[in-house]
Amino acid sequence: MKHTISILVQNHPGVLARVSGLFSSRGYNIESLAVGETEEGDVSRMTIVVSGDDAVLDQIQKQLNKLIEVIKVGDLKAGNSLSRELCLVKVKAEGHGRQELFEIANVFRAKIVDVSGSSLTAEVTGSHEKVEGFIELVKSHGILELVRTGAVAIGRGPEKL
Amino acid sequence: MKHTISILVQNHPGVLARVSGLFSSRGYNIESLAVGETEEGDVSRMTIVVSGDDAVLDQIQKQLNKLIEVIKVGDLKAGNSLSRELCLVKVKAEGHGRQELFEIANVFRAKIVDVSGSSLTAEVTGSHEKVEGFIELVKSHGILELVRTGAVAIGRGPEKL
Repeated sequence: MKHTISILVQNHPGVLARVSGLFSSRGYNIESLAVGETEEGDVSRMTIVVSGDDAVLDQIQKQLNKLIEVIKVGDLKAGNSLSRELCLVKVKAEGHGRQELFEIANVFRAKIVDVSGSSLTAEVTGSHEKVEGFIELVKSHGILELVRTGAVAIGRGPEKL
Repeated sequence: MKHTISILVQNHPGVLARVSGLFSSRGYNIESLAVGETEEGDVSRMTIVVSGDDAVLDQIQKQLNKLIEVIKVGDLKAGNSLSRELCLVKVKAEGHGRQELFEIANVFRAKIVDVSGSSLTAEVTGSHEKVEGFIELVKSHGILELVRTGAVAIGRGPEKL
């Protein structure tokens, strides 16, 4: 089963390696990971999407809680949280194809952020499924380069992690 | 000096820990890291923002290139690349404050993605500076929770990494 794990950590060198090492040492492959600062400068928040055995994940969460840099760990449930990611995708765009790409971008409310004589780069934001859908549609034009953030997630309502 | 490093890696367990470990073992703190799949299922792309000594970073890049999972490493220059990040921020929103938050969101083209009786959650996308600017403006309302992706970057024009 897929899980979205939120981890508040102290922003020290090495904490990212230790946290991701805990997953990989148990053969758990990280599907996506995003880490950035929070409103408190010395605290970072990681969002890790993993899929695998629930019992193993339970163990990993317990061990995460034992790391001194880890402040809080939460498993965000799909129905009770929002998940978003961002993707920049550079596609071949010549002749008729270019117009079609603009139309696809319009439907997905993607922004065209760069254009050259033979390519364009779109920025698309949304759920994992929406981003996947966009990529799937532009793929036939020829993807030159693609970079995505991986998901960040936050609980619905006023409660904190 | 701040650097945005793009790394194409084979999507194996442990590669994230090894890559981030290379930075932390040299005392280099990672400001943000984003990793997600590319259009090729077994290849992930990491974007790492770091600041520190250029000579040390040069060494790190050489050692990254020696890791068998690393396919390509590039240092994306600000003038010649686009960098974007995404942030979800949950803010206290009651009475007059709520209307003001809607107005700030409008100016920043942020989307309101969740509302409760006492809070709202906004999604804002853009450069690091834009996201910082938005956070700075909503801060006085009281930030309940904040999660950001860290930057992803891509070169301008049709060339690939």
